[in-house]
Amino acid sequence: SINGGRLWQSLMDLAEVGATELGGNCRLALTDEDKAGRELVSGWLRDAGLTLRVDALGNIFARRAGRNPDLPPVMSGSHIDTQPTGGRFDGNYGVLAALEVVRRLNDLNIETEAPIDVAIWTNEEGSRFVPVMMGSGVFAGVLTLEQALNARDKAGLSVADELQRIGYAGTEPVGGYPVKAYYEAHIEQGPVLDTENLPVGVVTGALGLYWYDVVVTGQECHAGPSPMPYRRDALKVASSLINRILTLSDDCQPDGRVTVGELDMHPNSRNVVPGRVRFTVDLRHSDEAVLLEMNNALEALIAEAATTGISIELSVVQKMAPTHFDSGRVDKVRQAVKDLGLVQRELISGAGHDAVYLSRIIPTAMIFVPCIGGISHNEVEDARPNELEAGANVLFNAMLAEAGR
Amino acid sequence: SINGGRLWQSLMDLAEVGATELGGNCRLALTDEDKAGRELVSGWLRDAGLTLRVDALGNIFARRAGRNPDLPPVMSGSHIDTQPTGGRFDGNYGVLAALEVVRRLNDLNIETEAPIDVAIWTNEEGSRFVPVMMGSGVFAGVLTLEQALNARDKAGLSVADELQRIGYAGTEPVGGYPVKAYYEAHIEQGPVLDTENLPVGVVTGALGLYWYDVVVTGQECHAGPSPMPYRRDALKVASSLINRILTLSDDCQPDGRVTVGELDMHPNSRNVVPGRVRFTVDLRHSDEAVLLEMNNALEALIAEAATTGISIELSVVQKMAPTHFDSGRVDKVRQAVKDLGLVQRELISGAGHDAVYLSRIIPTAMIFVPCIGGISHNEVEDARPNELEAGANVLFNAMLAEAGR
Ligand SMILES: NC(=O)NCCC(=O)O
Ligand SMILES: NC(=O)NCCC(=O)O
Repeated sequence: SINGGRLWQSLMDLAEVGATELGGNCRLALTDEDKAGRELVSGWLRDAGLTLRVDALGNIFARRAGRNPDLPPVMSGSHIDTQPTGGRFDGNYGVLAALEVVRRLNDLNIETEAPIDVAIWTNEEGSRFVPVMMGSGVFAGVLTLEQALNARDKAGLSVADELQRIGYAGTEPVGGYPVKAYYEAHIEQGPVLDTENLPVGVVTGALGLYWYDVVVTGQECHAGPSPMPYRRDALKVASSLINRILTLSDDCQPDGRVTVGELDMHPNSRNVVPGRVRFTVDLRHSDEAVLLEMNNALEALIAEAATTGISIELSVVQKMAPTHFDSGRVDKVRQAVKDLGLVQRELISGAGHDAVYLSRIIPTAMIFVPCIGGISHNEVEDARPNELEAGANVLFNAMLAEAGR
Repeated sequence: SINGGRLWQSLMDLAEVGATELGGNCRLALTDEDKAGRELVSGWLRDAGLTLRVDALGNIFARRAGRNPDLPPVMSGSHIDTQPTGGRFDGNYGVLAALEVVRRLNDLNIETEAPIDVAIWTNEEGSRFVPVMMGSGVFAGVLTLEQALNARDKAGLSVADELQRIGYAGTEPVGGYPVKAYYEAHIEQGPVLDTENLPVGVVTGALGLYWYDVVVTGQECHAGPSPMPYRRDALKVASSLINRILTLSDDCQPDGRVTVGELDMHPNSRNVVPGRVRFTVDLRHSDEAVLLEMNNALEALIAEAATTGISIELSVVQKMAPTHFDSGRVDKVRQAVKDLGLVQRELISGAGHDAVYLSRIIPTAMIFVPCIGGISHNEVEDARPNELEAGANVLFNAMLAEAGR
């Protein structure tokens, strides 16, 4: 019942902002591109008759009034920031599917009982600024506003300064008001739905995630005259450590994941033995007990790897427990899938989403649609218009049921 | 007989240009800092009565006239560019020791038979622009001027543009005139002299050097929802390959060296499985046959490491054969060491130096002095004034014998 063509067109229009050569998007949080994306989508939300508010962390809320203004709103949304080499659907789809729900309600002249809020959350990706899922995390009280505003990128710029610079340091407090339910549509970012050829998935929860920084410190010296036994090569220790770290999920399949995504060398010069290597570790599992085991195994590997002249520091960057969404709202999504005559497929999200943090304080559920080949966080990320439409129809039905006709 | 205090003061004054917090130097080739360093030293050379010329690659030559202007000059010098986290002595010492030789000849009113040239070579370090030892390489005809001018740094800036920008794109052709002999004084950059507590070393040649780039390409995808068996993780392959590469010199000690000094990740984001890893390999040995064996072993490791969904490319960046300096000039250095009553110690240089390329066309020798702990290419690089003075005295005696009183 939603307008799939209009949804697709909005996705393609937003994808023009920060478009990359390989057909992806680079719209890092709080950059000029993020600002331009925010302005484009805000315009569409206003055109749909919604009233916008911006909070102190740059989260944007667009309200469609309900018949009963005293009822808490039903909320839907996601993020429009991207990875450095991100795709056109991750996040964007959740925001624009919520916009399409509102546009369709307008088309059909439907007034809901409860108000509807479309949300755009600041810095979901965590690429430029850690912690990840920052806007929703502060809204949900999992992170403090101070922690978020003081986060700095590699160039030393803070969230507070960058919000100010792009004009999105709003005046509203972050969170602190009741929300009836939160629904988020998102591409799966993994291969399950695409492999099974299914248009939608019912998301029951999300893997827990532990993030770490590891710094290996040796001593830089000249690559030519320094005899091998004499070296304190930080990369030699780091690379053998990384080899072992990348086996940490071998015994806890299929839910276990381990990734080393970032690595920075110092001084990173061809004829210098590396003096320092910093890298990140990302551990995930559906079961917190297993995550703790992985954490302990990581600590043990690090303790073993330290050797004469080399020190290794491990620090925790963020911990997010496994999530179980609200069973009543998951049921509403199941019902919508059923009413639309689609196959029921339940999934656990491998990625964190704004919905994960929001579920700590709001009854929450999510809807997945496939992305082609399961490829995401990649410029070639792609999705099919008919499946994006199916997901938005599920969202429409679930939200309408929640908000009341 | 040279003035050690004056030499030390000049070293400390030059070290103010591009000084780093940890007491080192960052004066990358053709940056504003390099320009400032060139201007400072050029002033000193002019004050010593020398006539300066700059060639098309920014090499600076300062001439002290001889009695017989038809004789080819005796040349000495080195470089004043540094590593990103470099020290205060690497290169600088060779230039300022040559300046001190001239200053001392002036003090003593000695006129030499042959002219003397003090040389400052452009981009010896090869950190910002590859090939390394660029200025001397083109002077010696080992590299072409075109190749050098077209080299680009990571930001895409070319040597030609940067020479122009800092005002050192000179009008003189590069090389093409006879030089009687070339002597270069340098810190050892390794531990031998310091460990043996010797003030000077007689350098008989240099290790050969093979430089490579390796690019491992997999596919970036999201660190959360991508099941482990499904990944094409470029870092997983790169880190196990690096582990094996770092053993390549195990069987050819003590002269064998292997270093992975630079590594760049793509996209380098905490929650993205790395799609591409680029790293460098630096192999060294005194015997070309052994270098070729190491080269073949590297190619074999790369061929083995390629796996489904991962491709690996190896490309040669630079090859420099092992060097044997001119025996007659090495003898002149031995004689100077003897005359000064110092212990004879012969060494092979582990590092490439401008002298290495110049030795291809000019009879060449080198003098080493210790650096503390053998640490170089490091901000804490350090050397002792009395040993720097001893090395400059050896240089003075060898050059005076060469140029004739
Ligand atoms: N969906 C998404 O990219 N979330 C970022 C947090 C994570 O890495 O799971
Ligand atoms: N001396 C020096 O740092 N030379 C650079 C070339 C090399 O890496 O050997």
